[in-house]
Amino acid sequence: MGEAYLQTPYAKFNRHKERGTYDVETIHNLINTTSVLHVSFATPDSPFPVLLPMIGQIGTYAGDASPHLYLHGYVSSRIMNVTSSASSSSDAGLPMTVSATKVDGLVLALSPFSHSYNYRSAVVFGRATVLPSLGADKRTPAPEALWAMELLTDAVVPGRWARTRVPPTGAEMQSTRILKVAIESATAKVRVGPPKDERHDLKDPEVVGKVWAGVVPIWEFFGEPVPSGYEGGKGLEVPEHVGDFVENENRNAQEYAVGVASEEVGGEEDE
Amino acid sequence: MGEAYLQTPYAKFNRHKERGTYDVETIHNLINTTSVLHVSFATPDSPFPVLLPMIGQIGTYAGDASPHLYLHGYVSSRIMNVTSSASSSSDAGLPMTVSATKVDGLVLALSPFSHSYNYRSAVVFGRATVLPSLGADKRTPAPEALWAMELLTDAVVPGRWARTRVPPTGAEMQSTRILKVAIESATAKVRVGPPKDERHDLKDPEVVGKVWAGVVPIWEFFGEPVPSGYEGGKGLEVPEHVGDFVENENRNAQEYAVGVASEEVGGEEDE
Repeated sequence: MGEAYLQTPYAKFNRHKERGTYDVETIHNLINTTSVLHVSFATPDSPFPVLLPMIGQIGTYAGDASPHLYLHGYVSSRIMNVTSSASSSSDAGLPMTVSATKVDGLVLALSPFSHSYNYRSAVVFGRATVLPSLGADKRTPAPEALWAMELLTDAVVPGRWARTRVPPTGAEMQSTRILKVAIESATAKVRVGPPKDERHDLKDPEVVGKVWAGVVPIWEFFGEPVPSGYEGGKGLEVPEHVGDFVENENRNAQEYAVGVASEEVGGEEDE
Repeated sequence: MGEAYLQTPYAKFNRHKERGTYDVETIHNLINTTSVLHVSFATPDSPFPVLLPMIGQIGTYAGDASPHLYLHGYVSSRIMNVTSSASSSSDAGLPMTVSATKVDGLVLALSPFSHSYNYRSAVVFGRATVLPSLGADKRTPAPEALWAMELLTDAVVPGRWARTRVPPTGAEMQSTRILKVAIESATAKVRVGPPKDERHDLKDPEVVGKVWAGVVPIWEFFGEPVPSGYEGGKGLEVPEHVGDFVENENRNAQEYAVGVASEEVGGEEDE
């Protein structure tokens, strides 16, 4: 067993306990390899929590004692306003819940009741503050914001940052706001393997002999890169950092989804 | 313009207004074709909202005046407890926010600042109650719960319900809880098209002539179905309702993701 997150009442497993894990590596890996995260927080003017898709990545900034979750999203004014007011009224930051979910397969069973998904899902509970984007001189990038922008850009395609026009201008820094989330606790759930039907269905030839059961593996597939069409960029070939990434991602994703469609990993008990 | 959801303060667009829509068909279609939804609601014992992956589908039950969102998920005890207590203290139900997000492509621009995703995201705000699973006799399925189970099963693979062992037993009904969400408002956001860089980068041959920009299309890919391995089911071939579904989904998903990688749909303005 490696490092584990603290078990708190709101991070407790109430059902399918065997699917749960507090393992730090599993959780960080899920957050860091999921293309879109869901971010949820309460807002004082509505009974409905805010729920936004955002890009995120866990990393440790030089000098920090522990890793933090960095978030960036395009639907930003409201989240930034709420976070800023939370930061000013207390040092604790805005409480938020962040989820990463991957669907790895449709589990088609003999009965509708036993249908399921193969999936991996991580949830992180933490407190968010806005990272200052400019340094004390109000002109040059703040070092941590710049570092986080590189972390988030390279999370989309590894090595991308160094192959684009960098560094960002002061105006670009100012209109890019990044949230830094101090992680309080986290959990993950994983379901793998073939369908698991009930004994009375498995013993009934009218059911098991006639209903097709199995798993349809699912993965996020990256297609052939499509060039921008910019006049000044005609003739540029798809670079290695993009081409290799697409190829590796597709191979690894397929291998996992197809692998867990038939195999029990770690002999977990279902239901 | 078709039907539209009411614009409320919590469903307001604060940035990228041109990407937003209140169109009912767009929103329902996104919810109904996304394999996993994220469901968020406040809980009295924690500052962190609950955030759960669930399966969901919008449909109109016979006699209802409007469509509702039906939800089913495996992490169920806590959500059911909170919802039940909300239902008993008032008729309004538990306020929840439900999101469906599809990533359609990585938009790789000349500068990190102009990087983006092609995506579709819908958010529904509504009030949830638990659907009674058994009828007045406490033994036979409640008609609406049975209808909703069929709706949710066929959402995974169309026609699946009729090709499995049905109807569910009383015990199966009792341990399957379904949430019925009355929709109060909803919004969707869509980003399509190639990268859109800033003029100073497009005019700079050192940038536009050297940095590869373009879109990596992404879609959810369904692999070859993997049979269960049940002894009694050996020799069963992958049925048409599964095989055709896999083929159609893959073709349509690829067509959309690759299509929006280069084309502006509806001439939307970005940034």
